[in-house]
Amino acid sequence: MAEQVQVFGFWESPFSRRVELALKLKGVEYQYFEEDLPHNKSDLLLKYNPIHKKVPVLLHHGKPIAESLVILEYIDDIWKESYPILPHHPHQRALARFWAKFIDDKVVVAVVKAAGSRGEDREKAIKEAREALETLEKEIEKSNKLFGGDDIGFVDIVGTVIAGWIPAIEECFGFQLLTTDNFPNLIKWSDQVVNHSIVNQILPPKTEIVAFMKANWKF
Amino acid sequence: MAEQVQVFGFWESPFSRRVELALKLKGVEYQYFEEDLPHNKSDLLLKYNPIHKKVPVLLHHGKPIAESLVILEYIDDIWKESYPILPHHPHQRALARFWAKFIDDKVVVAVVKAAGSRGEDREKAIKEAREALETLEKEIEKSNKLFGGDDIGFVDIVGTVIAGWIPAIEECFGFQLLTTDNFPNLIKWSDQVVNHSIVNQILPPKTEIVAFMKANWKF
Repeated sequence: MAEQVQVFGFWESPFSRRVELALKLKGVEYQYFEEDLPHNKSDLLLKYNPIHKKVPVLLHHGKPIAESLVILEYIDDIWKESYPILPHHPHQRALARFWAKFIDDKVVVAVVKAAGSRGEDREKAIKEAREALETLEKEIEKSNKLFGGDDIGFVDIVGTVIAGWIPAIEECFGFQLLTTDNFPNLIKWSDQVVNHSIVNQILPPKTEIVAFMKANWKF
Repeated sequence: MAEQVQVFGFWESPFSRRVELALKLKGVEYQYFEEDLPHNKSDLLLKYNPIHKKVPVLLHHGKPIAESLVILEYIDDIWKESYPILPHHPHQRALARFWAKFIDDKVVVAVVKAAGSRGEDREKAIKEAREALETLEKEIEKSNKLFGGDDIGFVDIVGTVIAGWIPAIEECFGFQLLTTDNFPNLIKWSDQVVNHSIVNQILPPKTEIVAFMKANWKF
């Protein structure tokens, strides 16, 4: 199996880690190629993702797929039987896609903007990020469970960028986004996610993320 | 059927028109609610899309779904048998999702930025938009067909924003993005799309889009 499934990734990339998490949840073996980022992209990465030139890339039987959400859908399409990632019911599936898109379009964009700006621009981006996180807080409060219900699902996989990376960004850039006082349900969800036995294997330690960001996130 | 399927849309919105196009291709009857945008959003729109407060919203058996790409996936999930929108093969399906995301994230974002800026910022955005369109030009050149093959598919539906709206934006804002010289395949694709018997029914006339933009796109 492993030689048919290959992942081009980078240890610190939350997008790349999503793909590995999905494969591990499914019990799919894969061959992993660690890219030397941010400066030495391999020829294979550039060959397989010529449009965006970014990790992650999934190669299945030699055919490449890029973009983490697209890859997660593909993994769920191919290995249907083992560990469903997207909900079975079409309306639930649509909601999962909606929230995954929300996390990438609203939370990630605002957090990266906050990290990369100063002064008023940073304050504005922090406000945007908190508003997006409040929307998620309300959503997760409704069910008091993981987004995927009792098991890690599509939105939880995508949300590892919040659970695993936001604490490192807060430490690295010196601003606070998630506090137990304001986000009790999101913090509870986040604890459940990071302590999950498989997520735990794929999340880089916070200290290493912070060290990488300090060395490489030059704004 | 019509009372079970409702669309909250707006005639000038390319995102809202995608949903109607998908339903028409599938032959699904629906009840249409025209929103009075940009200023008088209905209480129902705010109720059904409280997160983004935007069209389109699809209501199916009373359950709302927002975000045009998410809605298109849902429509294809529910009405599987009639007129497939996404390709059947998982790798082809992944590629369709990749290109749809590319159109929204790269082409639409850059074109809107170009329309909303001046001077150097506009020049930069126009360059970004042209680069994204060149990527599509090369992709469509490979097959010399529609993105969906012989029939309008997922990427073509999403791409109506290019075929139907870019000419209006060019006229309205006085810059040129798509020329036959530089984009022969994209122009040929665009002609095929806008002349398709069903797309033709849902695309607003260019003059009306231009008039709406002139009146409402205040930057």
